[in-house]
Amino acid sequence: MSNEISDLILRRFPKYIYVLRSLQRKGQEFTSASELSRFLDIHHTQIRKDLALTGVRGVPKRGHRVDSLLNACIEFLDWDNLADACLVGVGNMGNALLNYEGFAKAGLQIVVAFDNDPEKIDKRINNIKVYPIEKMKDVIDILEVKIAILTTPAKNSQKLANEMIEAGIKGIWNFTPKKLNVPENVIVEDMDIYPALAALLGKVRNLSILK
Amino acid sequence: MSNEISDLILRRFPKYIYVLRSLQRKGQEFTSASELSRFLDIHHTQIRKDLALTGVRGVPKRGHRVDSLLNACIEFLDWDNLADACLVGVGNMGNALLNYEGFAKAGLQIVVAFDNDPEKIDKRINNIKVYPIEKMKDVIDILEVKIAILTTPAKNSQKLANEMIEAGIKGIWNFTPKKLNVPENVIVEDMDIYPALAALLGKVRNLSILK
Repeated sequence: MSNEISDLILRRFPKYIYVLRSLQRKGQEFTSASELSRFLDIHHTQIRKDLALTGVRGVPKRGHRVDSLLNACIEFLDWDNLADACLVGVGNMGNALLNYEGFAKAGLQIVVAFDNDPEKIDKRINNIKVYPIEKMKDVIDILEVKIAILTTPAKNSQKLANEMIEAGIKGIWNFTPKKLNVPENVIVEDMDIYPALAALLGKVRNLSILK
Repeated sequence: MSNEISDLILRRFPKYIYVLRSLQRKGQEFTSASELSRFLDIHHTQIRKDLALTGVRGVPKRGHRVDSLLNACIEFLDWDNLADACLVGVGNMGNALLNYEGFAKAGLQIVVAFDNDPEKIDKRINNIKVYPIEKMKDVIDILEVKIAILTTPAKNSQKLANEMIEAGIKGIWNFTPKKLNVPENVIVEDMDIYPALAALLGKVRNLSILK
């Protein structure tokens, strides 16, 4: 992958992969930027530009082979090389993510989890062992894990973020609503599902009141 | 709730509730807009304006009671009245959401699921029964469900969206990357976790290459 792949490009490729997998399951042999565009909210010229980054060339008059384009997109995102991740905070959200089987198809492998609840420590969830939070720094350091998924209560999140960064974490997927302060060489991706849910429910209720 | 609550206001309240619940667990009695602001990426004047919408008044020199402010925020979002939802597509994501225990605390109750796989039909997942997709319209109609969570492959999503809207669905939480075309009186909230994951992993890899 080039050093200069922008955030927006990175965010579009999973959409191409999703649609291509869907076409592949249907047994379709060829596709085109125009066809992909009909499934997505992305203009076909943008798709054509993005796909060119993978180096794959189309077949004249037939477009792209679905199989080879799919493989090129997966390679572009380096999704074949699973990144090891730890999960910190085995509550409702943590549990759901530990049990989620879709990450391996998107380049992520959760290898270890941490919590401070004695009931949870030393248990295995979907084969992933839960360690006491006091061991987090040592385990991250020894396993050389670079990605952390943060699913703790808000009050602990900054302190834990500081500790995991000290231990070598370079990317935090933050499922808490807390804004994290991190050094420049650490990436934070915020992912809070409740604002979306509140907006959906609130707007549907507004609609119902209005009519 | 007023008819005119904006999207952005709706999206901020879950963050207040999350922090207030966290303070409540800690046993803290009073809080203020300034304190909440320190946990969130929201300016305290904005928080003060939002909280005023709940009608709750602070105690001079002590701020807001955590308990009553929390209750007022929950009431503001109407989270005590669980909205019934159906889930369509019991794959990896569908399964994770059916097993997720955090929705009830955020106003949502999944009451029924649909799939076209005979292996899944008539099974119960976390006590939620899976019905054949052919029954979707009738079940939505009879149960008067207004919210649908869409977790199917991309190729089916528009057709299914059309059918559920015909049956009475007013809000779709769309976990597919497909852009849905819906009438004006239907709300769609897009929620695709893979773009965020791809951006995080890609940027961490860029960083590592750069140094």
